[in-house]
Amino acid sequence: MADSRFFHRRGPFSLGDIAEQVGAELSTAQAGHLMIRDIAALDDAAPGELSLFYDTRYLRALADTHAGAIVTSRGLARHAPRGSRLLLAAQPRLAYAQIGHLFYPSPAPDAIIDSAARIDPTATIGLGSRIDSGAVVGPGVDIGKSCHIASNVVVGAGVVLGDDCRIAANTTISHALIGSRVEIGSGVCIGGPGFGYEPHLNGLTRMLQLGRVTIGDDVHVGSNSAIDRGTSGDTVIGSGCKLDNLVQIAHNVRLGRSCVICGQAGIAGSATLGDGVMIGGHSAVSDHVTIGSGARIAGNSGVMRNIEPGGVVGGFPAMPVRDWHRQTAGLMRSFSRRTTRSGGQET
Amino acid sequence: MADSRFFHRRGPFSLGDIAEQVGAELSTAQAGHLMIRDIAALDDAAPGELSLFYDTRYLRALADTHAGAIVTSRGLARHAPRGSRLLLAAQPRLAYAQIGHLFYPSPAPDAIIDSAARIDPTATIGLGSRIDSGAVVGPGVDIGKSCHIASNVVVGAGVVLGDDCRIAANTTISHALIGSRVEIGSGVCIGGPGFGYEPHLNGLTRMLQLGRVTIGDDVHVGSNSAIDRGTSGDTVIGSGCKLDNLVQIAHNVRLGRSCVICGQAGIAGSATLGDGVMIGGHSAVSDHVTIGSGARIAGNSGVMRNIEPGGVVGGFPAMPVRDWHRQTAGLMRSFSRRTTRSGGQET
Amino acid sequence: MADSRFFHRRGPFSLGDIAEQVGAELSTAQAGHLMIRDIAALDDAAPGELSLFYDTRYLRALADTHAGAIVTSRGLARHAPRGSRLLLAAQPRLAYAQIGHLFYPSPAPDAIIDSAARIDPTATIGLGSRIDSGAVVGPGVDIGKSCHIASNVVVGAGVVLGDDCRIAANTTISHALIGSRVEIGSGVCIGGPGFGYEPHLNGLTRMLQLGRVTIGDDVHVGSNSAIDRGTSGDTVIGSGCKLDNLVQIAHNVRLGRSCVICGQAGIAGSATLGDGVMIGGHSAVSDHVTIGSGARIAGNSGVMRNIEPGGVVGGFPAMPVRDWHRQTAGLMRSFSRRTTRSGGQET
Repeated sequence: MADSRFFHRRGPFSLGDIAEQVGAELSTAQAGHLMIRDIAALDDAAPGELSLFYDTRYLRALADTHAGAIVTSRGLARHAPRGSRLLLAAQPRLAYAQIGHLFYPSPAPDAIIDSAARIDPTATIGLGSRIDSGAVVGPGVDIGKSCHIASNVVVGAGVVLGDDCRIAANTTISHALIGSRVEIGSGVCIGGPGFGYEPHLNGLTRMLQLGRVTIGDDVHVGSNSAIDRGTSGDTVIGSGCKLDNLVQIAHNVRLGRSCVICGQAGIAGSATLGDGVMIGGHSAVSDHVTIGSGARIAGNSGVMRNIEPGGVVGGFPAMPVRDWHRQTAGLMRSFSRRTTRSGGQET
Repeated sequence: MADSRFFHRRGPFSLGDIAEQVGAELSTAQAGHLMIRDIAALDDAAPGELSLFYDTRYLRALADTHAGAIVTSRGLARHAPRGSRLLLAAQPRLAYAQIGHLFYPSPAPDAIIDSAARIDPTATIGLGSRIDSGAVVGPGVDIGKSCHIASNVVVGAGVVLGDDCRIAANTTISHALIGSRVEIGSGVCIGGPGFGYEPHLNGLTRMLQLGRVTIGDDVHVGSNSAIDRGTSGDTVIGSGCKLDNLVQIAHNVRLGRSCVICGQAGIAGSATLGDGVMIGGHSAVSDHVTIGSGARIAGNSGVMRNIEPGGVVGGFPAMPVRDWHRQTAGLMRSFSRRTTRSGGQET
Repeated sequence: MADSRFFHRRGPFSLGDIAEQVGAELSTAQAGHLMIRDIAALDDAAPGELSLFYDTRYLRALADTHAGAIVTSRGLARHAPRGSRLLLAAQPRLAYAQIGHLFYPSPAPDAIIDSAARIDPTATIGLGSRIDSGAVVGPGVDIGKSCHIASNVVVGAGVVLGDDCRIAANTTISHALIGSRVEIGSGVCIGGPGFGYEPHLNGLTRMLQLGRVTIGDDVHVGSNSAIDRGTSGDTVIGSGCKLDNLVQIAHNVRLGRSCVICGQAGIAGSATLGDGVMIGGHSAVSDHVTIGSGARIAGNSGVMRNIEPGGVVGGFPAMPVRDWHRQTAGLMRSFSRRTTRSGGQET
């Protein structure tokens, strides 16, 4: 059960209502009347709670569970104890995530602009947006509706944010145009100058960094990550991209839609990623490299050359994962788990 | 001599008092009367200062030193110049560290709550705690006694801190239960949402992150590190753990007691470490991996499989260090130095 | 064209004036009368704009460009379309960078100390310096002339800054002596305690960290980097050094002049670098290692042993790049591009 100091639960909901909301099917019609008051892992769940079974690794937890109902797939349903109340979904993990959002919706922010926030008079703040203590909103900034700008966030001159964005505490944003439903973690730096220098007799002269950062809709950025603005032209984070913590995105990098970049990965200047690229934790992509749509890079890799669409690579220098596998038995299992980063069923 | 703009020295103390405080032995009884006013490296020390000799690499510095007294071990004492005043300790580096804390104790904070701090009326602040300008303490927060919350720190709703904690500037903490004598560096992010998504037709849905971060006693966390909260259940940092700068701890990671995690290392989701595990700088541990108590991971390694208790591994993929050593001569020396990260006798 | 919400252009300037300012030569005398209103990449440039051609990779963009004038070298001039107005420079990229600074100079800060900045009465602020909302300047701090301390920056007791420094938002500085014309990005932590512990029966005792950070002139530090103070003696960043984002500099590291440290690289305790060392992104240097002046470390490397002056190494463990090259064809091209991190002509 989630700690009520930190999380606020809605409900209860009947299993029937839940099934309807997420487009799942009930194992029996009368199961629909069961009232569910929370979600929980198989080994923690109580009779009024709903749990998830999506992998036969968790057969024992399934056998022992006290959960009142279980989300699973049609194919896995036969493993459930006789008489279990089941919610059958094509993607049980997805259904479980969606159910979680029913019980624990992200509350819309209270539309309060704290007296200790510093808002430039030329800034525009949309209806329903909240700005917390110590936040600074610079000249000409345009913040959309229902955004939450947390304490001590600094939004530099001219930045544009869409609607329903959440910017966590102590984050700094400049030189950026940001879409809607974007969530930026704490301590993030967006819009810093790219890293480019020309040597001269007495040292190094900085190349001007005259571009921007453009971020699409539904992008998430994790804690303490850094995204530099372009040199000329923009650094681009496509809609739906998810970046983990401590990720480095250099100047003029271009990410397509729905890329997943795991913790501490770094993408060097002007690298281009297609749509749906997954990059494992602690990996590095060299500058000017192109990675095709759907490619997957195992964790801890160093990518120095272009990767074909759909390519699956690992190692340093990164090579097709089947070649790397020959060198490093057991990698594949680790790889697939690392890049999907399930997180759903910790036990 | 430490710069008095930054450090405030106590003393002087007699060598006899010092010996008693740290349980060391004097080489001669009359040495106990010598007044010591500071500690210093062998090559910097003046006659009224005490220095450290713990390794024969520093024989020349020992021969040339002007130090008034030297901490060393019984076994190394014969290298000291005739007539040296010695303090003999079983662990001379430990004794030197303890003596340092006599001369430079961490001052208890002045119990001042700055007028420009923003404290929610429902928060509880223990006796003797100090809250600096721009800090934000949210609803229901419970801060113990004699804590120091530095400027612009943001402590989210419901967070619990024990006694004698120090939180450095610009750090963000949420969804966390923290023990006593914990020191968190600047720019740290604790309690962010874990990184887990489920693909759906139009993109990626976040798995709810309903867990917490629990941190034991005597934990240190370095600058700009990030510790995510659990998905369900907690991310756990055991008592006595020390984390360096820019370390990534993903959701549901569990560290035992007194683990040492060096700079820029990353531990992926649901990895479990026993007690006393040491992880060298820039290393990566894959998700769901188990590392037994006392294991040591060389710097720059990539750990993709479980490690036995006491295992000593390095490389990528990490292998027993003796195998890796065959490939990479000279590693062992580097490894042992890297993981202990002495720092005591820089010259 | 740079987004006027974020960048403020000066000019126009005649090509003749520009040539004189940067010591370049005009291809024809009458070209000097052309008025230039901006700089732009070859494929973006309009007739009144000046562009750069420095590499035959961009021949097609050169042939198609609408730029009014082009900076190039004498050797490359023959590739330009007949009749082009050229500015000939020994280092065209350097000249282009310098021209950029003519059009987009860094504005001197307005000398305003925000009413919501917290300045200790014992601090000294030089003429023309600006301190923004939420910034905290501690006791005894000495800030030079024409500095800009951005919002929510925290400068701890006793810190010294020279003239013309710029400290971006949400950065924390303590225990540091900093030169002039230094630029520190957002979210940076300077002066934290080094990471060194001694084991004892019940855990680990911190070695005191009694040193400082000293930073020379003209140093740049990127977003979310961390630089720890020395244990005894100082951590030293030589004049002209440029550090990218998320870089880790441990206690007692010493960088010579004009070193270039790319993103997410880490330098462990007491490592010493000469002058002009270049370290590629995501690389790690072990503690106590010495790297000679002019050495270059490829990205993603792990340096465990000393490197000779001028050495060029890569891989893990790092080896001479020609040996590594035999193992990893195609590296050299990637290496040279990665370490120079041009950034000038993204297309």
